[in-house]
Amino acid sequence: MKAYSEMTKEELLAEQKQLNEEYQKYLAMNLHLDMSRGKPCKEQLDISMGMMDVLNSQQDLRSEDGTDCRNYGCLDGIPEAKVLLGDMMENHPDNIIIYGNSSLNVMFDTVSRAMTHGIMGNTPWCKLDKVKFLCPVPGYDRHFAITEYFGIEMIPVPMTEEGPDMDMVEQLVSSDASIKGIWCVPKYSNPGGVSYSDETVRRFAKLEPAAKDFRIFWDNAYGIHHLYEDKQDYLIEILAECKKEGHPDMVYKFASTSKISFPGSGIAALATSLNNLEDIKKQLKNQTIGHDKVNQLRHVRFFKDIHGMTEHMKKHADIIRPKFEMVEQVLEEGLGGLGIGSWTKPRGGYFISFDSLDGCAKEIVSRAKKAGVVMTGAGATWPYGKDPKDSNIRIAPTLPPVSELNTAAKLFVLCVKLVSVEKYLNA
Amino acid sequence: MKAYSEMTKEELLAEQKQLNEEYQKYLAMNLHLDMSRGKPCKEQLDISMGMMDVLNSQQDLRSEDGTDCRNYGCLDGIPEAKVLLGDMMENHPDNIIIYGNSSLNVMFDTVSRAMTHGIMGNTPWCKLDKVKFLCPVPGYDRHFAITEYFGIEMIPVPMTEEGPDMDMVEQLVSSDASIKGIWCVPKYSNPGGVSYSDETVRRFAKLEPAAKDFRIFWDNAYGIHHLYEDKQDYLIEILAECKKEGHPDMVYKFASTSKISFPGSGIAALATSLNNLEDIKKQLKNQTIGHDKVNQLRHVRFFKDIHGMTEHMKKHADIIRPKFEMVEQVLEEGLGGLGIGSWTKPRGGYFISFDSLDGCAKEIVSRAKKAGVVMTGAGATWPYGKDPKDSNIRIAPTLPPVSELNTAAKLFVLCVKLVSVEKYLNA
Repeated sequence: MKAYSEMTKEELLAEQKQLNEEYQKYLAMNLHLDMSRGKPCKEQLDISMGMMDVLNSQQDLRSEDGTDCRNYGCLDGIPEAKVLLGDMMENHPDNIIIYGNSSLNVMFDTVSRAMTHGIMGNTPWCKLDKVKFLCPVPGYDRHFAITEYFGIEMIPVPMTEEGPDMDMVEQLVSSDASIKGIWCVPKYSNPGGVSYSDETVRRFAKLEPAAKDFRIFWDNAYGIHHLYEDKQDYLIEILAECKKEGHPDMVYKFASTSKISFPGSGIAALATSLNNLEDIKKQLKNQTIGHDKVNQLRHVRFFKDIHGMTEHMKKHADIIRPKFEMVEQVLEEGLGGLGIGSWTKPRGGYFISFDSLDGCAKEIVSRAKKAGVVMTGAGATWPYGKDPKDSNIRIAPTLPPVSELNTAAKLFVLCVKLVSVEKYLNA
Repeated sequence: MKAYSEMTKEELLAEQKQLNEEYQKYLAMNLHLDMSRGKPCKEQLDISMGMMDVLNSQQDLRSEDGTDCRNYGCLDGIPEAKVLLGDMMENHPDNIIIYGNSSLNVMFDTVSRAMTHGIMGNTPWCKLDKVKFLCPVPGYDRHFAITEYFGIEMIPVPMTEEGPDMDMVEQLVSSDASIKGIWCVPKYSNPGGVSYSDETVRRFAKLEPAAKDFRIFWDNAYGIHHLYEDKQDYLIEILAECKKEGHPDMVYKFASTSKISFPGSGIAALATSLNNLEDIKKQLKNQTIGHDKVNQLRHVRFFKDIHGMTEHMKKHADIIRPKFEMVEQVLEEGLGGLGIGSWTKPRGGYFISFDSLDGCAKEIVSRAKKAGVVMTGAGATWPYGKDPKDSNIRIAPTLPPVSELNTAAKLFVLCVKLVSVEKYLNA
């Protein structure tokens, strides 16, 4: 098919007419489909149902150190949970705190604590005139929501195929002491599916921040969330790397089992240096007596160890890989060669990132919505919801059943074409 | 037996000699007993073990509104959990948010949010020169730890048998706009076991605070934690009372199932006005996608309804009532008539509050510790850990088995006598 940019006005009008007819058919279908959020589908949840059976009333609910998991106590998690999530995060159990059900909550609390009490003796951020965060874009809307909520100024940093633009990161971090953090999803990034290259991770570890309390917020949400057995990304372990570079305290790592066991009923963890842990526990001991140890025990008894978890992740991959491949195929078949969009082909994670012609994303999402297909709001992948080029759209293919997803993807392709034709006609 | 105050020096010396000999025997026993924290005992945990069986892999884990509890979402809790905890807190489900495993965490976050963002549009507390809280004493050390952590000045208010000294509360709250809150455990209070009288609750509801963002932090931790079926305290429902008085937004109510099901693996809740809920959710939606709905479902399916919960609480009472009665008996037999201590005889809750002669509490706790019995640190029931009279000691009788508790209580009595004799001898 001819690229839209090479079509005559007549060709574009003919194309538009046909697309509009097709769009009308979708409208008549009265669809209610959702490609908006990175939620596991029912089949993925089903593979963890055994978790509901591993604990029962006949069992001893003590952890291996003898702690009765049913009672109060154990601020930072039971030992075997630290081992399991330590293995998952590639960190020593001594560097781990096991939290409640949400790593997002841990990130929020981490920023909140820095606001009210500062980091390791530094001035509380709420006492400073200006606090800034670097935000690789496109990125995760819920990260940006936290920093926006706390009035932290967000500076977009473009993503490349190797991770954030490190020239820009280095330049900003080393020159501006009001820059206190950077949001990173370093593996199978949200939404681009990019894994940071070895070089990128090393450059992170070598950062020389102007602010002593600068921290890398390393949200390794998709650390073991591969789509393929034979094509997997590898990520250098940042905590060890920072230590080698003489910056042991520069990173907070976050992870959870939300997309491994049950979202909302998983366990979250933070991994960081012993200095940071000490600093954090000063707050944590005032905030809670301890997190849900029974659920920690449930996870350990279900997965047993990191091998069990790795095997479990293959089942997730088998369920969602066909969805990714199908969406990629629909995109390729519908848009290949038209020059009106590009998209990522991730090896893991939960998203496909789509880039339309400039100025079209909002309208594409709006047309899809009108026809009953909810996408992540255009702009959501940028701080303040403002994508300056209005081009990025996050596609979340995991939740809908394959047949619905196929319909939704085709409608999406149609909307991309329709809005792109209009753009050329109006140019 | 003669009151110590009426003994001659010779009599006191003879008493001291005998007490010291007895104390030596305890030292030789090499005890390791704990009466320090309000933790349920093993038998109490055992009665909730059925909770481990109510959910299994064969079951539908959807809530009654169709929400798949295994997936993301549902910020404020599943409907049936709101009904159950609403019934427990005597509030409409619409006024409830279901949280994670710890009401302490909810209280911490409530103060933290007020610090960084203020309450309902008022100035964030971190921007104010001075923020103060009223602290009824003796009170709960973890409450005081939260306000101390945030640099909030704590003003002790004496407890009477009807609750906090309301003359003082009214005077302070109406005259000082820097007073932003008061910590209350209104029923079977920690540690005094006092339940606020009708008059006290009504006076709370009628408060006319100088600060628009003054809030009553109503931690009804022991709302249904009766020790007796025939002798129970009743508490007027504060949210309704505040509404009647035209102060609908003046109270945050906190509760959890920590001492109903499993501490650390229960569910917590907050009940407040719709205005406050709206204010809170602005933060909550940035902090988390939702709390553990599977655990919410587990609680509802186990207890079924408030009747099930009430019946369950009778089992708790049957286990811990003998412990309270035994400690009270040991105290009466050992200290009755000596004029060296007084103690509460609560109808519910988790504590007996003991008052020694002035200046003796720290030394009593220290002697008990030396002989292997850990009590709550003397002073812990006061802000900053400073009991000006050094007289209050919190006794937590629930955790140890009855036989150990008997030994611990007798040792405690001995330490009280020993330290009191010394006080008279040194006078």
